[in-house]
Amino acid sequence: MGNFLKRKKNRRKFLKKTVALSTAAAASLIIPKKSIAKKKYNWKMVTTWPKNFPGLGSAAETFAKMVNECSGGKMNITVFGAGEIVPAFEAMDAVSSGAIEMGHGGPYYWKGKVTAAQYLSAIPFGLTPQEQNSWFEKGGGQKIADEIYKKMGCKFFVCGNTGPQMGGWYNKEIKKIEDYQGLKMRAPGLGGEVIKAAGGTVVNIHGGELLTSIQSGAIDALEWVGPYNDLAFGIYKAAKYYYYPGWHEPAAILDCFINLKKWNSLPEDLKKIISLSAKAATQQMTNEMIAGNNVALETLVKKHKVKIKPFPDEVLKKLAILSEKVLNKLSSSDVLSKKVYKSIIKFRNASIKRSENQKKFLETRYKYVKYK
Amino acid sequence: MGNFLKRKKNRRKFLKKTVALSTAAAASLIIPKKSIAKKKYNWKMVTTWPKNFPGLGSAAETFAKMVNECSGGKMNITVFGAGEIVPAFEAMDAVSSGAIEMGHGGPYYWKGKVTAAQYLSAIPFGLTPQEQNSWFEKGGGQKIADEIYKKMGCKFFVCGNTGPQMGGWYNKEIKKIEDYQGLKMRAPGLGGEVIKAAGGTVVNIHGGELLTSIQSGAIDALEWVGPYNDLAFGIYKAAKYYYYPGWHEPAAILDCFINLKKWNSLPEDLKKIISLSAKAATQQMTNEMIAGNNVALETLVKKHKVKIKPFPDEVLKKLAILSEKVLNKLSSSDVLSKKVYKSIIKFRNASIKRSENQKKFLETRYKYVKYK
Repeated sequence: MGNFLKRKKNRRKFLKKTVALSTAAAASLIIPKKSIAKKKYNWKMVTTWPKNFPGLGSAAETFAKMVNECSGGKMNITVFGAGEIVPAFEAMDAVSSGAIEMGHGGPYYWKGKVTAAQYLSAIPFGLTPQEQNSWFEKGGGQKIADEIYKKMGCKFFVCGNTGPQMGGWYNKEIKKIEDYQGLKMRAPGLGGEVIKAAGGTVVNIHGGELLTSIQSGAIDALEWVGPYNDLAFGIYKAAKYYYYPGWHEPAAILDCFINLKKWNSLPEDLKKIISLSAKAATQQMTNEMIAGNNVALETLVKKHKVKIKPFPDEVLKKLAILSEKVLNKLSSSDVLSKKVYKSIIKFRNASIKRSENQKKFLETRYKYVKYK
Repeated sequence: MGNFLKRKKNRRKFLKKTVALSTAAAASLIIPKKSIAKKKYNWKMVTTWPKNFPGLGSAAETFAKMVNECSGGKMNITVFGAGEIVPAFEAMDAVSSGAIEMGHGGPYYWKGKVTAAQYLSAIPFGLTPQEQNSWFEKGGGQKIADEIYKKMGCKFFVCGNTGPQMGGWYNKEIKKIEDYQGLKMRAPGLGGEVIKAAGGTVVNIHGGELLTSIQSGAIDALEWVGPYNDLAFGIYKAAKYYYYPGWHEPAAILDCFINLKKWNSLPEDLKKIISLSAKAATQQMTNEMIAGNNVALETLVKKHKVKIKPFPDEVLKKLAILSEKVLNKLSSSDVLSKKVYKSIIKFRNASIKRSENQKKFLETRYKYVKYK
């Protein structure tokens, strides 16, 4: 055969191969028709946050924007602040009933419906933000959370994380564990249960009443989130000490809950977009909280002369022991609570050794890096 | 007005409001036609990792899967391991030239093309993983990274984060800074420059040769990633001590780079899906690394009896001082290096005070929580 023919034959071989490749590529693209959205979905999301609430509320807005943009308009989620359609704590009822498609809040808001939900938010002396996200994805958390939310007729997603919280604002100095005796404190969730066990009186107050309550002396102390959110509420104007660490909520996730029937009716591509957006919104909120807390803490210290204090080691030690007692007892109340609590504690315990590395790095940076 | 009429009037008001709302919702759905993908995009992604490489390589696979599923088949990315189409370190050339649409690796692999790229990976005594992600999103990092990658004809995305790395495997004990004199160590990137300045000899060895190099005594020490990846390579078989913290790489991001012309030619919905998937893949890799490191570290300690040791404080102090000197000098080499370095250091310095909270929490949990 001459060169020409050889070239021609090679060319034919090449074309044959290319066609085979294209067919294979095309085959991998064959996705069942019903799994791709055809019609448009206009959904509502009710939240437990005031409209445009920094950090927490913006996680819901970020999530909705991501879904809307990625779906190229096939899904359009409109976010409503607390009270715009339903009051904050009726968000779950609205979604459970199917009146509204989806909601955004925090798992412990639903402990009145399913006790076990509160453990999903945060556990005193529990997981760091990244460990918490990891527990949901790789430690069995998603499955347990879906089991809990199914009881409320919903599908569950992690959709935001506050990051490490601060220990709270105090007008009374904490020098020993006995200083909690008679302390009136706004402290929600499981951390509040530990404070009660230490002799404190726990008061539940809405975000909007925090400043006036501590100003009037109705409470001696309060816990909200961290510098970024606390600064916005002006709490520094009425409280003397800002304590750390946030042992009661070392991280707290936010939830996106979707009416289960509506969820099941979605085509696959929109399901994937929702799941992905919840994950990316969690990452974005973490990014926002770190940058926001950096700036806010500096403002609190430099401009408002706030006294930042660590809890004494002896107090932290006793709170850790007390937490274990309180949570062991509380979580024995029902099978699901016990299951979620044990699973988190197992992941926490497996994390302590590994996190020595991170602890030592932060210590080193704090002690030996010149930064001013 | 009677109650009935009042109700009727209210109902009319409600309907009017609802209609107005629906019209607004519909209006927000008007998206320019060209911004929604019509045709199908079959893209290739070349990587610097062996096919199915745990953690690092799986970030690329995760990312591609997310894009493929969310786009409902409109985009189909096929991931190739190192050497399948081009060798690992020719990935950037393949993408820059437009021969391949996208790639996945680590920014410091491209320092031979743009010196400033290496600062994007990690900085000794720099940012924690979450701070690093936050710097890219909220601290100006994305903009600087795009400026750097534009010089290589690419669009840049963070697509993965190793989490905090360990300090490395040593066959020689490090008791004082002078112990680095003459130490032959595999230590890439900026951390390697600091080790050189401390008197060490830095050797560059591919992942596949790590074990044999330390077994033969060709090197005295090496740094790879952390327990999850190091266990898989069997390094514990030949090295005595496993040091922490990973001061040289407190976190390291991975990059997704896309040929700029191809990127610009994409419709808006696919651009959003890519951007979102890179963010969610970063979160998912972090989740995987935490869970994987938990288990691997326990295996190393309990099964393989590995000695985990912190570097002495005096050594860390001197390494921190040395790092500052070395990096200040290195980053003065060109305008872009100086710009990226200064920006990261500014964010790091603003983070130290805020991270006291996290440091104290990890200390407390380590000291006072019973976990065995």
